[in-house]
Amino acid sequence: MPKTIKKIGVMTSGGDSPGMNAAIRSVVRTCAYHKIECVGIYRGFEGMIEGDFKSMDARSVKDIINKGGTVLKSARSQEFRTVEGRKTAHDKLIEANVDALVIIGGDGSFTGALIFNNEFDFPVMGIPGTIDNDIFGTTHTLGYDTALNTVVEVIDKIRDTASSHNRLFFVEVMGRDAGHIALNVGVGAGAEEILIPEEDLGLDRLLESLRRSKQSGKSSSIVVVAEGDKIGKSVFELKDYVEANMTEYEVRVSVLGHMQRGGPPSCFDRVLASRMGVKAVESLLDGQTNYMVGLLNDVMALTPLDHAVKGKTKINLELLRVSEIMST
Amino acid sequence: MPKTIKKIGVMTSGGDSPGMNAAIRSVVRTCAYHKIECVGIYRGFEGMIEGDFKSMDARSVKDIINKGGTVLKSARSQEFRTVEGRKTAHDKLIEANVDALVIIGGDGSFTGALIFNNEFDFPVMGIPGTIDNDIFGTTHTLGYDTALNTVVEVIDKIRDTASSHNRLFFVEVMGRDAGHIALNVGVGAGAEEILIPEEDLGLDRLLESLRRSKQSGKSSSIVVVAEGDKIGKSVFELKDYVEANMTEYEVRVSVLGHMQRGGPPSCFDRVLASRMGVKAVESLLDGQTNYMVGLLNDVMALTPLDHAVKGKTKINLELLRVSEIMST
Amino acid sequence: MPKTIKKIGVMTSGGDSPGMNAAIRSVVRTCAYHKIECVGIYRGFEGMIEGDFKSMDARSVKDIINKGGTVLKSARSQEFRTVEGRKTAHDKLIEANVDALVIIGGDGSFTGALIFNNEFDFPVMGIPGTIDNDIFGTTHTLGYDTALNTVVEVIDKIRDTASSHNRLFFVEVMGRDAGHIALNVGVGAGAEEILIPEEDLGLDRLLESLRRSKQSGKSSSIVVVAEGDKIGKSVFELKDYVEANMTEYEVRVSVLGHMQRGGPPSCFDRVLASRMGVKAVESLLDGQTNYMVGLLNDVMALTPLDHAVKGKTKINLELLRVSEIMST
Amino acid sequence: MPKTIKKIGVMTSGGDSPGMNAAIRSVVRTCAYHKIECVGIYRGFEGMIEGDFKSMDARSVKDIINKGGTVLKSARSQEFRTVEGRKTAHDKLIEANVDALVIIGGDGSFTGALIFNNEFDFPVMGIPGTIDNDIFGTTHTLGYDTALNTVVEVIDKIRDTASSHNRLFFVEVMGRDAGHIALNVGVGAGAEEILIPEEDLGLDRLLESLRRSKQSGKSSSIVVVAEGDKIGKSVFELKDYVEANMTEYEVRVSVLGHMQRGGPPSCFDRVLASRMGVKAVESLLDGQTNYMVGLLNDVMALTPLDHAVKGKTKINLELLRVSEIMST
Repeated sequence: MPKTIKKIGVMTSGGDSPGMNAAIRSVVRTCAYHKIECVGIYRGFEGMIEGDFKSMDARSVKDIINKGGTVLKSARSQEFRTVEGRKTAHDKLIEANVDALVIIGGDGSFTGALIFNNEFDFPVMGIPGTIDNDIFGTTHTLGYDTALNTVVEVIDKIRDTASSHNRLFFVEVMGRDAGHIALNVGVGAGAEEILIPEEDLGLDRLLESLRRSKQSGKSSSIVVVAEGDKIGKSVFELKDYVEANMTEYEVRVSVLGHMQRGGPPSCFDRVLASRMGVKAVESLLDGQTNYMVGLLNDVMALTPLDHAVKGKTKINLELLRVSEIMST
Repeated sequence: MPKTIKKIGVMTSGGDSPGMNAAIRSVVRTCAYHKIECVGIYRGFEGMIEGDFKSMDARSVKDIINKGGTVLKSARSQEFRTVEGRKTAHDKLIEANVDALVIIGGDGSFTGALIFNNEFDFPVMGIPGTIDNDIFGTTHTLGYDTALNTVVEVIDKIRDTASSHNRLFFVEVMGRDAGHIALNVGVGAGAEEILIPEEDLGLDRLLESLRRSKQSGKSSSIVVVAEGDKIGKSVFELKDYVEANMTEYEVRVSVLGHMQRGGPPSCFDRVLASRMGVKAVESLLDGQTNYMVGLLNDVMALTPLDHAVKGKTKINLELLRVSEIMST
Repeated sequence: MPKTIKKIGVMTSGGDSPGMNAAIRSVVRTCAYHKIECVGIYRGFEGMIEGDFKSMDARSVKDIINKGGTVLKSARSQEFRTVEGRKTAHDKLIEANVDALVIIGGDGSFTGALIFNNEFDFPVMGIPGTIDNDIFGTTHTLGYDTALNTVVEVIDKIRDTASSHNRLFFVEVMGRDAGHIALNVGVGAGAEEILIPEEDLGLDRLLESLRRSKQSGKSSSIVVVAEGDKIGKSVFELKDYVEANMTEYEVRVSVLGHMQRGGPPSCFDRVLASRMGVKAVESLLDGQTNYMVGLLNDVMALTPLDHAVKGKTKINLELLRVSEIMST
Repeated sequence: MPKTIKKIGVMTSGGDSPGMNAAIRSVVRTCAYHKIECVGIYRGFEGMIEGDFKSMDARSVKDIINKGGTVLKSARSQEFRTVEGRKTAHDKLIEANVDALVIIGGDGSFTGALIFNNEFDFPVMGIPGTIDNDIFGTTHTLGYDTALNTVVEVIDKIRDTASSHNRLFFVEVMGRDAGHIALNVGVGAGAEEILIPEEDLGLDRLLESLRRSKQSGKSSSIVVVAEGDKIGKSVFELKDYVEANMTEYEVRVSVLGHMQRGGPPSCFDRVLASRMGVKAVESLLDGQTNYMVGLLNDVMALTPLDHAVKGKTKINLELLRVSEIMST
């Protein structure tokens, strides 16, 4: 029979994303609502090993629902990859009377959580926090919707310059393994082409498409490129290639970088974070462990953590077609 | 056998919402993609009766994907409520060789479309455009997501003042018959209470909740009120009532009004609009009529227009509970 | 010879405005830079009387430069209007070894500061913080520039709806005694008319102007109205009047309210606040008292507090003319 | 005696900046107000040579006051650098009955204008449009204020990630020859150090400053670097240098790029543009030529174009000191 849970630890791990603070707030307040204790663990697994804990009550999370980043900070931990490191972490949790963990993060964090649970039979629950939306078991990860808006607003600004000067811009957006951001902002910002890790458009087709676009009367163009696009060229190489093969355009490059991960969360991400925090805590209190909470068909759902880690999300192929039609 | 569709008319009707322009663009470009003609109908049914049409090709909708409002304008039409008015409208469409209609609007517009189809057997397809999200057959109407972000950002600003002065604010948001906006922005902005048309919280419980909130250490509070809240009091009456019954708070009121309907659409609304436009045109070309395109379980789906009009959307009761927990 | 200043108290008073936090941060860090102590006084004169003080060092003001509102809170104090109240306040300051005060606020706060200095010979320095820009001795008060951007962005959204529906909007903005906000946002948002406390346009001229605007081909119009406009009618009365006398327009009203006072400060306000904080502290350390720091011809300048209180700012009449030309 | 001016041409030239459209609108409407004709010249001097002109009346500039970029487009022209090119341009203007020019642009555009006036005695008036604020004769160029806000908002987002991960970020902002943007956003975003073209901080001092910052308890830092910073190292080289010499920080780099030039103009830039357009047209009508309109001590002023081109703007050294104090 599982031990009754009287104190829950909450932490953020991996890259930060908008909505993490809203999720922390939700975990803390759901604990308060159910009259159990809550402890914030700083700097992810690193702080867990160091016992960098802080008691949190309902008032300690006020005014953070609209803040980007994570008040609990995040860090990578080499030490947690060792048995000794995890042993120390477990000791610290026991010492602090922590009975269960809510881990807000991505694939890597969930893998760590699974190993930890396996070794110490310690209840863990995951909340998917990453802008990349590349986690199986949820249609939306925390921060993804916010990042889409951030990027679309930036491309709107770049388009002002592009169309004033009749230029072609290659805009690199985040997404090493997944094209969700590129695909959606490409459609949302009216990009002429979208290059993603999942599909190889081919350089020839890119040139052809840009030429057709020019002929159809467009004076400027935006091409959105995911970091890990299948063509395997950086935006700078793409610029050189296009300039060498097309004289119709002056080409410019913009690498959006880290700004995509910050900023106040969108309403959607705040609501999602609030729902996920409630679901995560109440699932632990119900005796569940090794799950990730997620949004499936607009409803909160649990997915086994190992499925979340191993499962593969798919891009929405309908959007590729929509993008092609919109580039008419 | 239905006539082959060679020319589609597109119009916006009813209150404007962000994403309408993106939907117009999508309809026009999908027509261009399928090499059929497209005609913009200005000022809704009013312009249809007057024959206020304009040919649109792929280039005529450039640079509008990110604009609020509707370039085709919108209007109410008394005349279209008469048989004669509709007859004239039909004549104008025939005269202009228009074979089918895409109508972007809400309940009232769809009702008009159904009557029109019934009388003249004219193919019609609806796209739900309203910030209220009160249309059956889609989890999201066009503009709803944008409005949520607009309102949450405004309440963030009001909270700056509320917490600097230890005040209680009643913030009135749109939603005469539906509490979707109020419920989501209430959770997203961290409101202490949310008053909606679907649930009667009762004045006593409101006072009690505000008192508990004060006792728990909160120095300021936001109460989000939908226009059509069940208690049936305006925000001004609520202010008076609370001030008469609680001396702990200085109370202020803010009626957000029309700004909620404008602004550049969010990425979500732009993508949704693009998908809906494609689906609407291709459904007409497939010989379908009297449907509304919508988003159900993240997939484009058709709902019979009469269901869309008569069906009742439900608020997400889970969110009411999340809100209560978050107010701990 | 004035006493050497070793500890400075900083407070915010009156209505909050964006940039107040940036000014607090600047005062605190300038104290740290000069190795003197700094004390935050909560809730203005009210907290001064209650001795609600908190030691502040350079780190206690991190991450507030971009926050609206005031972390020191603000309040009105009836008690400070009495001799006894001020005596208690002075006792508390002496008890806490505070040698001088920086007061961030408006007219009322400065008047209180002058009386206090007069009674106890206590060094005081003012920083003008209000969105209304109605303080003599500075071309820009803290928060004014931010408020202009906030309002212009909101009117841009209202215009989306206005032009989609061919409507006339009366938009009420802050400014009971001063038309600075109305005048600038009116020009910035492309309003057809601007009603301010300083000039009486007259109802007849308003109607005439709206008629001319309609005839010149404009389908929608925005009229910006300052709270204290000279015509002396509320926006609701203006609506009724215009609807009774013009049938060309459907009229709508929007009262922007408190949102105008919140939000992250603009870059200008953050820089201004940083400069003002440095100037205020260093002026006190130089032995100055009873001054307000301000921006005159882009340079930091001191104005005697009594001039700041009694002096009258003037609106820029050039802008009225620009507005008229732009409404062509 | 100068010829009476009956038709004015307006063009944008050089890099685009927010507020150019508002200035075009102002020029066009001021012409309409004074009942003279106005012609838009597309793509700068290039379009002038090609006779790419379009008649503009008050209605043709509606709904552009809040748009970034330039509806008249901009381009570089090699041909205008030749006598023949300028001769052709002059012929085209004469042919179109254009009597005077308003040129919205920067140094290069003004130099072209001066040569053109010198050769053909053609009246020209300049409006300074560039985000760099590096033009003599105005405290603010069009677009500068907007760019400051754009950059500060982006750095706020980057700071979310920086402080969540205890990182040091080098953020490169525009400014090849002038540090105005870097200096102001550095202060406004609370940067620890600011590297600008006008001052050589030195790599040693940079390291020292970062170390001191770390010791004082700061866990993350932002260093703002102007493109043309005096140290002469790119942000990537700075990253390598700091990582080689400090192990305390994980370092990241962000190059903001073209997004800094786009977006809706701030209220300040819209008002400034409106004022400048009126002043430019009315100065031409008054018989003035070879001037640039500018803002000096908050008042519209004329500066001879050759002074504007040759004069050197100075950075505000007070801000460097404020920045140092704020980094305490």
